Amino acid sequence: MAKPKNAFYAQSGGVTAVINASACGVIETARRYKAKIGKVYAGRNGIIGALTEDLIDTSKESAEAIRALRHTPAGAFGSCRYKLKGLEENRAQYERLIEVFRAHDIGYFFYNGGGDSQDTAHKVSQIGERLGYPIVCVGVPKTVDNDLPFTDCSPGFGSVAKYVAVSIREAAFDVASMAKTSTKIFVMEVMGRHAGWIAAAGGLAAEKKGDAPHIILFPERVFDEAAFLARVDLVVKTHGYCAIVVSEGVKGKNGKFLAESGLRDAFGHAQLGGVAPVIAQLIKNKLGYKYHWAVADYLQRAARHIASRTDVEQAYALGRRAVELAVKGHNAVMPIIVRTANRPYKWELGVANLADVANVEKKMPEDYITEDGFGITRKCRTYLEPLIQGEDYPPYKNGLPHYVRLKNAPVKKKLGGEFKV
Amino acid sequence: MAKPKNAFYAQSGGVTAVINASACGVIETARRYKAKIGKVYAGRNGIIGALTEDLIDTSKESAEAIRALRHTPAGAFGSCRYKLKGLEENRAQYERLIEVFRAHDIGYFFYNGGGDSQDTAHKVSQIGERLGYPIVCVGVPKTVDNDLPFTDCSPGFGSVAKYVAVSIREAAFDVASMAKTSTKIFVMEVMGRHAGWIAAAGGLAAEKKGDAPHIILFPERVFDEAAFLARVDLVVKTHGYCAIVVSEGVKGKNGKFLAESGLRDAFGHAQLGGVAPVIAQLIKNKLGYKYHWAVADYLQRAARHIASRTDVEQAYALGRRAVELAVKGHNAVMPIIVRTANRPYKWELGVANLADVANVEKKMPEDYITEDGFGITRKCRTYLEPLIQGEDYPPYKNGLPHYVRLKNAPVKKKLGGEFKV
Repeated sequence: MAKPKNAFYAQSGGVTAVINASACGVIETARRYKAKIGKVYAGRNGIIGALTEDLIDTSKESAEAIRALRHTPAGAFGSCRYKLKGLEENRAQYERLIEVFRAHDIGYFFYNGGGDSQDTAHKVSQIGERLGYPIVCVGVPKTVDNDLPFTDCSPGFGSVAKYVAVSIREAAFDVASMAKTSTKIFVMEVMGRHAGWIAAAGGLAAEKKGDAPHIILFPERVFDEAAFLARVDLVVKTHGYCAIVVSEGVKGKNGKFLAESGLRDAFGHAQLGGVAPVIAQLIKNKLGYKYHWAVADYLQRAARHIASRTDVEQAYALGRRAVELAVKGHNAVMPIIVRTANRPYKWELGVANLADVANVEKKMPEDYITEDGFGITRKCRTYLEPLIQGEDYPPYKNGLPHYVRLKNAPVKKKLGGEFKV
Repeated sequence: MAKPKNAFYAQSGGVTAVINASACGVIETARRYKAKIGKVYAGRNGIIGALTEDLIDTSKESAEAIRALRHTPAGAFGSCRYKLKGLEENRAQYERLIEVFRAHDIGYFFYNGGGDSQDTAHKVSQIGERLGYPIVCVGVPKTVDNDLPFTDCSPGFGSVAKYVAVSIREAAFDVASMAKTSTKIFVMEVMGRHAGWIAAAGGLAAEKKGDAPHIILFPERVFDEAAFLARVDLVVKTHGYCAIVVSEGVKGKNGKFLAESGLRDAFGHAQLGGVAPVIAQLIKNKLGYKYHWAVADYLQRAARHIASRTDVEQAYALGRRAVELAVKGHNAVMPIIVRTANRPYKWELGVANLADVANVEKKMPEDYITEDGFGITRKCRTYLEPLIQGEDYPPYKNGLPHYVRLKNAPVKKKLGGEFKV
């Protein structure tokens, strides 16, 4: 019997609270198919690890360490923001990948990332074919932006959604307590430069009319200062305080991000960033209300301590299924989440072709935002609610989550020379 | 037998993740002393509720609702930032308090707050005496700032400490994953305008040399730009990335808060606030590293979902003990936490006199900060570590913490006229 081919796995782009759960699914499942898959090599810092032949031998990790990936946030092998160019523009990169895969007898390529990464995975499958080194390429979906097509949701999003909804609920309880004599406005900035999925998730914190958040600002809607200020004032006069979720991607009428709308330091350097302080200051200047603001930034996508159990289960299942698809001979595909029922929520795994997935961005439907542009519709809530269900607490040690750090032992290089990335 | 006197309870100043746990301790315990304590009236929005005769009848709340206060963040009755002036400066306010207490047959005054509030409680006990309306005044300590004297720690602090340590650990895992090609610097701003207790707590995330956070900036140390930048550069060159916790209270050589060091909007309006973006931008300008930053703001003190079990237990116990002290006839006192052992951590309840507590601020000891000014010492860690031990998860419903909202039924007013606050 031929020696089974090794597998290559890499994490790509912005990491999430559950991308390691997918890694866990890939590696644990590969270990169960020893007749078909040899070792799993991970790219150190994503695809760059493949290009530079900087591979990590995951077989050196104990079963316990790999299991702990399921509850460890961020990218255990390192990720990268590095988009391979088109096949014709930079054929050398693709050829290099195949060269490294050939040198290490790699027959499977698992790429854990968003739309760009699925495009890369697709191209690798094409070039492998052409260069006479066929490689089974399977994508594993991941992105907090929730913008991958075909899949009902993207792993990583559900946990950010839960974090954002929990955080705005808690902070709103705080500001409600203080509003009589002090802070009346709370602004929380969340991720989502191109789509309002994450901002929308904040809306889950409101169970009934009047609950926080009272206003959500979406990148899908041009910021209307007058309408916004009028609404803030009305909310404060009605409820005594106003809690606002704002997407980092909100733009003004001039098409520019509000976050870039002119913040300067004392030396005139532009752009310290952050749309929350811009919004808060605007309210203060125009309405006079005392404010507080928060920018969650990485905290939101790294918050494994409050991850959605649904999200963790899906992330793991997609990693597992990616390997199952590969050993069954499927190529250039990506496992996806298929929703089969809303209440109670039911989902199963499906499959999409990388050729169809690549570089297609799923937008938030128009009818997920209320007509006034400041909230989410019932339809949006029906979609989002299942994704934050369940908790999946990590183990704690000394009062803190006990996350694993792998050994990340290097695979001995076989190729001479350096490849410049 | 004489009808038992009613009790007045109020929450004061910035709220915390566990101040309601103290309220729970007060109310549940008062309900067990029916022969000595009638109803517990809460001040709506703190002491303002007493001055304006806006009282809440907590006897209208079910046992279940009161129990749920234990896991609900912020101030269930509303708090306020309102410091009563000195007795001689504003005697009318104190007389008004006594007038309201007399009208509602209130014989116990429980004031849940920081140093200022304990001062108020002390003065109320004095004026009651003088006006011939003796009232038992017992303080219940609370403050995320951890600056109350005598007590080993202040309820609210342990949970902020846990949130900050968890958050910087998680965000640091994220930035470590991204550092190869993208973000190398992460700056997280935390509360603590006058003392570095909260910033110090971030240091708990580091278990061994090289762990994040690599640098902590304390309000106790004047910001030394050159030394700081040199350290950042060294950390990035050694570990590939640098995670920084900065206290909002850090000041420059000119004695001004860095957060106020000249941020202006496009119209030249000063002070959008936030020291994290200032620090991040400084690093970018001087060292060129790509950054991300977060400002946790209210999220940190409202984060009941990740509260320290130790903190919750102490907050409850102090509320309970306040009532026990009162019914035993102790007056002008405040129950405190006494640490009796570090490993394993043991604590018991003690008692301090309000006369001693009032307006005394506990500073962070000099030897809690490392000599270079960028980290915490072993001694500091020994002090802090027990305070974040244990989790105390709230119940969840629909994927979100299920926090209670009380009915907060008003007590019928008995006095004519309005009192201007």
